[in-house]
Amino acid sequence: MFLKLKKGTTEEGIKHIIDKIKELGFEAHLSRGANSTIIGIIGENVLKTKDIFESMFMVESCTPISKPYKLVSKEFNDKKVVIKLSHNVEIGNKKIAVIAGPCSIDNIDYLYETASSVKQCGATLLRGGAFKPRTSPYSFQGLGLEGLKMLKKVGDDCKMPIVTEAMNLEQAKLIADYADIIQVGARNSQNFDLLKELGKIGRPVLLKRGIAMTISEFLMSAEYIASKGNYNIILCERGIRTFETSTRFTLDLNAVPVLNSLTNLPVIVDPSHGTGVRSYVMPMSRASIAAGADGLIVEVHPKPECALSDGSQTLYADKFNEYMSEVKKIALAMDREI
Amino acid sequence: MFLKLKKGTTEEGIKHIIDKIKELGFEAHLSRGANSTIIGIIGENVLKTKDIFESMFMVESCTPISKPYKLVSKEFNDKKVVIKLSHNVEIGNKKIAVIAGPCSIDNIDYLYETASSVKQCGATLLRGGAFKPRTSPYSFQGLGLEGLKMLKKVGDDCKMPIVTEAMNLEQAKLIADYADIIQVGARNSQNFDLLKELGKIGRPVLLKRGIAMTISEFLMSAEYIASKGNYNIILCERGIRTFETSTRFTLDLNAVPVLNSLTNLPVIVDPSHGTGVRSYVMPMSRASIAAGADGLIVEVHPKPECALSDGSQTLYADKFNEYMSEVKKIALAMDREI
Amino acid sequence: MFLKLKKGTTEEGIKHIIDKIKELGFEAHLSRGANSTIIGIIGENVLKTKDIFESMFMVESCTPISKPYKLVSKEFNDKKVVIKLSHNVEIGNKKIAVIAGPCSIDNIDYLYETASSVKQCGATLLRGGAFKPRTSPYSFQGLGLEGLKMLKKVGDDCKMPIVTEAMNLEQAKLIADYADIIQVGARNSQNFDLLKELGKIGRPVLLKRGIAMTISEFLMSAEYIASKGNYNIILCERGIRTFETSTRFTLDLNAVPVLNSLTNLPVIVDPSHGTGVRSYVMPMSRASIAAGADGLIVEVHPKPECALSDGSQTLYADKFNEYMSEVKKIALAMDREI
Amino acid sequence: MFLKLKKGTTEEGIKHIIDKIKELGFEAHLSRGANSTIIGIIGENVLKTKDIFESMFMVESCTPISKPYKLVSKEFNDKKVVIKLSHNVEIGNKKIAVIAGPCSIDNIDYLYETASSVKQCGATLLRGGAFKPRTSPYSFQGLGLEGLKMLKKVGDDCKMPIVTEAMNLEQAKLIADYADIIQVGARNSQNFDLLKELGKIGRPVLLKRGIAMTISEFLMSAEYIASKGNYNIILCERGIRTFETSTRFTLDLNAVPVLNSLTNLPVIVDPSHGTGVRSYVMPMSRASIAAGADGLIVEVHPKPECALSDGSQTLYADKFNEYMSEVKKIALAMDREI
Repeated sequence: MFLKLKKGTTEEGIKHIIDKIKELGFEAHLSRGANSTIIGIIGENVLKTKDIFESMFMVESCTPISKPYKLVSKEFNDKKVVIKLSHNVEIGNKKIAVIAGPCSIDNIDYLYETASSVKQCGATLLRGGAFKPRTSPYSFQGLGLEGLKMLKKVGDDCKMPIVTEAMNLEQAKLIADYADIIQVGARNSQNFDLLKELGKIGRPVLLKRGIAMTISEFLMSAEYIASKGNYNIILCERGIRTFETSTRFTLDLNAVPVLNSLTNLPVIVDPSHGTGVRSYVMPMSRASIAAGADGLIVEVHPKPECALSDGSQTLYADKFNEYMSEVKKIALAMDREI
Repeated sequence: MFLKLKKGTTEEGIKHIIDKIKELGFEAHLSRGANSTIIGIIGENVLKTKDIFESMFMVESCTPISKPYKLVSKEFNDKKVVIKLSHNVEIGNKKIAVIAGPCSIDNIDYLYETASSVKQCGATLLRGGAFKPRTSPYSFQGLGLEGLKMLKKVGDDCKMPIVTEAMNLEQAKLIADYADIIQVGARNSQNFDLLKELGKIGRPVLLKRGIAMTISEFLMSAEYIASKGNYNIILCERGIRTFETSTRFTLDLNAVPVLNSLTNLPVIVDPSHGTGVRSYVMPMSRASIAAGADGLIVEVHPKPECALSDGSQTLYADKFNEYMSEVKKIALAMDREI
Repeated sequence: MFLKLKKGTTEEGIKHIIDKIKELGFEAHLSRGANSTIIGIIGENVLKTKDIFESMFMVESCTPISKPYKLVSKEFNDKKVVIKLSHNVEIGNKKIAVIAGPCSIDNIDYLYETASSVKQCGATLLRGGAFKPRTSPYSFQGLGLEGLKMLKKVGDDCKMPIVTEAMNLEQAKLIADYADIIQVGARNSQNFDLLKELGKIGRPVLLKRGIAMTISEFLMSAEYIASKGNYNIILCERGIRTFETSTRFTLDLNAVPVLNSLTNLPVIVDPSHGTGVRSYVMPMSRASIAAGADGLIVEVHPKPECALSDGSQTLYADKFNEYMSEVKKIALAMDREI
Repeated sequence: MFLKLKKGTTEEGIKHIIDKIKELGFEAHLSRGANSTIIGIIGENVLKTKDIFESMFMVESCTPISKPYKLVSKEFNDKKVVIKLSHNVEIGNKKIAVIAGPCSIDNIDYLYETASSVKQCGATLLRGGAFKPRTSPYSFQGLGLEGLKMLKKVGDDCKMPIVTEAMNLEQAKLIADYADIIQVGARNSQNFDLLKELGKIGRPVLLKRGIAMTISEFLMSAEYIASKGNYNIILCERGIRTFETSTRFTLDLNAVPVLNSLTNLPVIVDPSHGTGVRSYVMPMSRASIAAGADGLIVEVHPKPECALSDGSQTLYADKFNEYMSEVKKIALAMDREI
């Protein structure tokens, strides 16, 4: 971390800062330039002290160098994390994971129809929302436990691991008894109590990026989970909020190579929420794999126009084979399996 | 809500949509233009059906007209909401509410020193964090219940209502036993279970705007609280995330007149988090009042450089009188009291 | 276009608006709902009148339906635009166009070295900056005409069409005498006089998207060029400005399928400026092709560390073959040539 | 500027970099930490070399400390710039400058009516667009020279200095013969040739902030003008582009205190374009003054519904006195004149 001192800081002032740095157990490196005096602070967890130095009146600016996360960083762990699930499914290996299913679970027949058709086309995991976070209190809020049980039954029958979202601590504990992967939605991506609880529960976590979250903050949220001992974390880019309105969000595929350069956790992409438009899901899915993603999570329903949420971005179950064949071409070109 | 149909939609297709609209209990209004055919859908809660129509293949676009919130809208309630608190303090009346105190509660002596000095200068409520949401798991996380008790004691002794943040359901219930106002932070502004719980608890809520939240979504989050019967909601603008980096966030003062035009809930501003820089807090506080805000929430500490969080944006307790006299000038010019 | 009227608008007020609509030569469609009264306005160029209606005090909101551009829209022209250049090079056909070269032209030897190596690897066009827009007045501003002549000579000798940027009307006229394609940079993407001039000059134009430009605005800028009779326009996504800082800009690949759905102009991507980081250029290039782009424009230099601008995002000329072979894999998977 | 070296950089590598730094005439400061090795580079214009170091493969990151602009910085000039205009009008002194007039000049009668009424209410300068940048080629493009002459005549008759926008070099030269202040619009805020030309022409310049421009970039654009010897620059905040849609742009009032801390150039605000909604113009004007702005530029017209552009954000000429009396209250509270 570097401190730039204000012009006219006295020798005494400089000494005061250096003493403080040493008192906190760090090394201090002073450099005096023509225009400015800089003090470098070096040591473990130096970032924790940023607030202290930033608020000293002699300090003009405080510039961190090292990263604010550790356990999830490539520097700490240079081996790709592979997440092992039921039915011999893995995420993070050579095979692209395709997680498919309805946005909300509405009824078991639709769920069976969806699961069997996506499974047949090569999807490896089943997704479905039982507890739904909705921006408006007047929108459908999900079937709850009943939906969770449906998802479990259909997953077992179709031999697919299941993924569903938890919005709070109670739901997390409940879902841990049924699901292979617990999803944290974008709105809860900085719900730190939930993240810590998921760290303790130990089930694999699918962590979605917040819509206004920097990649550094995204990894800090993953660090919350890892800091409690759970390293089975799947990072999911799902679109950030920008000024552009032709897509529901701006799916940020740059995040894929950036995350791959910073962490060894598996990285997947959600083109359904990221674009919000059915016809853009296929091209952006191909692009995700070409960018280096380890998997995709997409919304599929037999009758999107009857779906209780997000119909406009949901793929038709009976056209899912076209989707998969397109994605497969790119996966093979990337020397991945699917 | 208006549906624009795709070119070449058949009469049969149009009839199908109109039948669906009527089946759902709404009025349909057909207009055929040179370039496009439009169907207007009119009725209560028409928005709930947006997903259904958006996903019909004949529909090119779906444009809502009416607002997705109701109870908190000016159309529904045209009387300014005034929130009555202990020690005869009110928020939403002619008197500007100034909520001051440390970001995090660190020790009781500092808290007393802060409270007595801000009270003396004219602040009417005391703020302080007992449970702290921190982006990094390695940052100070707050004193918890112990801090909450300190805040209660100091508030009572200094005759100031107290405000503190709840991050989850348990904390909300706990804080309700101590605090006059329960704060919901930006990160939890779409934690819908927490919002519903606060609606049931009934204590006044200080709801912060999320950093990527539109004003319409902000009001929908308030609607979650109101939909459970609690109308004592204070809306707080605290800065949105943009590309600009010279301030920690972009304090969006436009939100003040916009909210005042849409709702009668009190609107306050947090210039400390909104700018992240001590020297900008005073000018932006004046600007907030001039824009029509009902109050301010600011961070104050006797020794910001020793504060355990956000020191760089915290005002010095012993300089708070200068701050208040500046804010007072504007309040009086606005024909408000302080 | 739809007008939502304010509550309590009188019959007289409604009549006044409808008369105005008819006076302007449009059709008016009135729909009265329980909560709101809406008037639909239908006809050619109705958008030009938006300002007029928006400012009527009876009008609460004004919602356009039809698009504000025409000549470049798919509805107007449903045949893919293919741009024919010297040396039998085309952009917009089955073959992926790869435009490679240095950010700034620094000296002719480097330029020859770059051109011959990229040509050999399969690049079809040569790029290079002679006139450089730089954010700081103290950065290198380009070699000007001298650089332009170098680019022309090297392009001829290597049998590659050349692309270079014009920042103003004079430069546009000058460059038209040398270059096959005149580039408009992001900063000039709404320099309307320049766009109109390029429309008249008639040379193919490579139009970069502005960093805060919506896709609709992007197409309106293209419309400026087309409105003067020049349809040879290549649209280039080059990254938008968002809150994310781990990349220099956020390369918005969603723009590729969105543009492909709205226009038949060729769409290319600039991953060098879009990411600003050399190691992200290859994955985002693959992703661009997988998303459906017709080409790429990338920065290549024999010694990036000696380049006079953008060295950190520039590919090494001697490693360009690796880059091309990666891109080629995806191109073939997309059934494109390269 | 600080270089963070990649792990495992050899002594030789370090020496190579230090030699390069010295060769370029800078001081090098090496600090070796437990986790990282940092080299500080200190000297004049060190920023010009950022590209060179960033692209060295041993360098992990390159962090500038000093500012990329100089002539317009407070460090360089600590005396407030006061701009002297005709009719004894000044901008940057104790008196708040109010620049009022129509968005576009449509006819001379309206212009006289507007000018006389705003002058009477206390506005000190007259604005009006003769050359209009419009996003759509089909919108009204302005009256050109004819409009410019009207503006000049009305300004003279009403004894008000005039302000109008130049979109290119020719217009700049032409306008210099008529107007007291040449305005550069947001879209041209990085049209560097235009900025340099205005630096040479020497007329006072009203420079608007680009909608995606950081404050640092804003000052670099001002530096372009200053670098040619023209220091008479007025900086104008006019709204940035964010995800929020309830206002046309997000007027960033934080820019006022930030600019006041970085430069001594006068800072004004444009609440008409910044909000895009008439009813928000007054509260945001008050807020601008309370934030410390030196002036306002607002759109006024006798019949906004007949204005040829931006009618919905334009104030009614016959209600301008109410506006001024509101703004005056805040100006006096700020100990300013108006």
